[in-house]
Amino acid sequence: MEHGADIETYQQYSRKKLIDFSSNINPLGIPPRLEIKIKDDIGNLVRYPDIKYRKLKKDVSMYLNCAEENVIVGNGAVEIIDIFTMIAKRVIVFMPSFSEYEKRARIHNKEVISLDLDENFKIDIEKIKSVIQPDDLLILGNPNNPTGLRIDKNTLISIYDIVRENEAILLLDEAFFEFCPTDYDSIKIFKKNDYLNICILRAATKFFALPGLRLGYGCSSKELVNRVYEIIMPWSVNGIAESIAKHLFTDKEYILNSKAYVKNERDYLLSELRKLSNIVAYDTDANFILVKLLHKDEDFALHFFLNRGILIRTCSSFSNIGRNHIRIAIKNHHENSVVVDVFKELNKL
Amino acid sequence: MEHGADIETYQQYSRKKLIDFSSNINPLGIPPRLEIKIKDDIGNLVRYPDIKYRKLKKDVSMYLNCAEENVIVGNGAVEIIDIFTMIAKRVIVFMPSFSEYEKRARIHNKEVISLDLDENFKIDIEKIKSVIQPDDLLILGNPNNPTGLRIDKNTLISIYDIVRENEAILLLDEAFFEFCPTDYDSIKIFKKNDYLNICILRAATKFFALPGLRLGYGCSSKELVNRVYEIIMPWSVNGIAESIAKHLFTDKEYILNSKAYVKNERDYLLSELRKLSNIVAYDTDANFILVKLLHKDEDFALHFFLNRGILIRTCSSFSNIGRNHIRIAIKNHHENSVVVDVFKELNKL
Repeated sequence: MEHGADIETYQQYSRKKLIDFSSNINPLGIPPRLEIKIKDDIGNLVRYPDIKYRKLKKDVSMYLNCAEENVIVGNGAVEIIDIFTMIAKRVIVFMPSFSEYEKRARIHNKEVISLDLDENFKIDIEKIKSVIQPDDLLILGNPNNPTGLRIDKNTLISIYDIVRENEAILLLDEAFFEFCPTDYDSIKIFKKNDYLNICILRAATKFFALPGLRLGYGCSSKELVNRVYEIIMPWSVNGIAESIAKHLFTDKEYILNSKAYVKNERDYLLSELRKLSNIVAYDTDANFILVKLLHKDEDFALHFFLNRGILIRTCSSFSNIGRNHIRIAIKNHHENSVVVDVFKELNKL
Repeated sequence: MEHGADIETYQQYSRKKLIDFSSNINPLGIPPRLEIKIKDDIGNLVRYPDIKYRKLKKDVSMYLNCAEENVIVGNGAVEIIDIFTMIAKRVIVFMPSFSEYEKRARIHNKEVISLDLDENFKIDIEKIKSVIQPDDLLILGNPNNPTGLRIDKNTLISIYDIVRENEAILLLDEAFFEFCPTDYDSIKIFKKNDYLNICILRAATKFFALPGLRLGYGCSSKELVNRVYEIIMPWSVNGIAESIAKHLFTDKEYILNSKAYVKNERDYLLSELRKLSNIVAYDTDANFILVKLLHKDEDFALHFFLNRGILIRTCSSFSNIGRNHIRIAIKNHHENSVVVDVFKELNKL
């Protein structure tokens, strides 16, 4: 399984309508009034998007609390990842992580330096120091996928310092940012550095539950923003995404409710899963949980869950993780209780 | 002016609300019942698009009358153009033509062989023969932008034969196909060749009046389709585009009405413009007209029209065309009569 959310492929293996635990989307769905806003904004499909995305960049800058000139927008976060791999000389990744980092780099014929996370899925800074060269692109998930772990603040600052000293670029993929504990905000931390040598990447996909909208956005230095806009395809963000972003970003009640809901469900799921003896449920800062199967492999688990109407994410397509890990999304309480019951059933085997 | 439709930039130069003659969109707007369909389909934003776009490819294949395995879909035609320039060894273009052909090739560090159209904006086949090599990508607009001319059927077949003999690839950009006289259909012609060494590219952007939707699609050989899908970004077509395509393609009444309307207005505009002595209005098969200014340059015309509430497309950003050409879209009858009046005013200077 290269990506989650591929219900079309897996539905045939289940007699029940599948509940999708393989993709990590806000369980509360879209902001409640958004549907009306989208309906009002259909006119935005019948004109070209602004080729410079002036209003959209302003909306993003107000949400991120950075200057408009620091904003990049793209057709999902993956388009911005793709462009940064084009800009880079070589691409450094830590495994396991989102497979598109390496894939986009290879498509653009870039050398990929693949480093392993340690046994606790942490980054060893010395490994970065030993390989990094000028114009390298270091891509880090924060929190990382599939592990769910954020980089602690001091480590992040140390990594950034190494990247700057070596005239490289740090691409911090924070697609799951809003689900995390609010102990720090990378965009606030690196403002004083004018985002030199860094791009902090976020998206509407996960937190705002809009994977079909295709809206990613980043915050970077003026110089890197300019380099991206020399390369990016014209009109790559569609007219609906362009126009409704502001309605997402200003719904503070929805944002707070979503954070609280996911935190409660994360606590619930971790506490239930940790009662079981045949799995290890790892710590997570995100809206998904990486689970190690102690006595079964991922294929067994995939079909075990499919037979019970649940699609999980197998993890062997992530490098450096073997065939005994699965990832589940944190969904609504009822769905989470259903998945817990299936884990309990699995535990009896 | 690198692209049309940039109302955001030019509105400041006009006291009137601008009529956009710089972008070439169906003057009848979207199919009448489409707005309701889009509103019903908003649910498609809250799930991931099918990563394999199975239903969308089927919808496209039924519209184009080709097999599903021959279909490529992209984030606008420009994404498919971009990927073909990545696949190519070198890129051959004829000037003037859509600037993104050359731009995308250069972004991917491909050598660009730039040939000139003749003084009647026709293709000289001998020029192709003299330069083409294996794995070259020849990109031709059919009809071409900004000239509006289609390649005649026999010439097209000759070009295809040269491309195949030389083991190169022909990318035929037919984004304006449905506006043209129905003397031939490239997809029908090259079916017997299994679309080997060719991709025929179309889009919802122009004819279906949905530039904000970002839906391009192509018909190509199984081998080329596979190569594209090794490269294309995941989920590059958004959920609304994925779900509403079928409603566009099946509205036969709207399709016939649009073709007839544009034909009538094309005849009207050409006949009116050809009464004027200070311009040459070129033949066109498309929904836009290239106009040569005999005594003024494009900048004068741009501001002359802006002062009268009209945004035209200056053409010097297309190579091999100088600074005395402008392009106007064919819009609704009232708007067309307004633009004719401004041309008449210009003729008195």
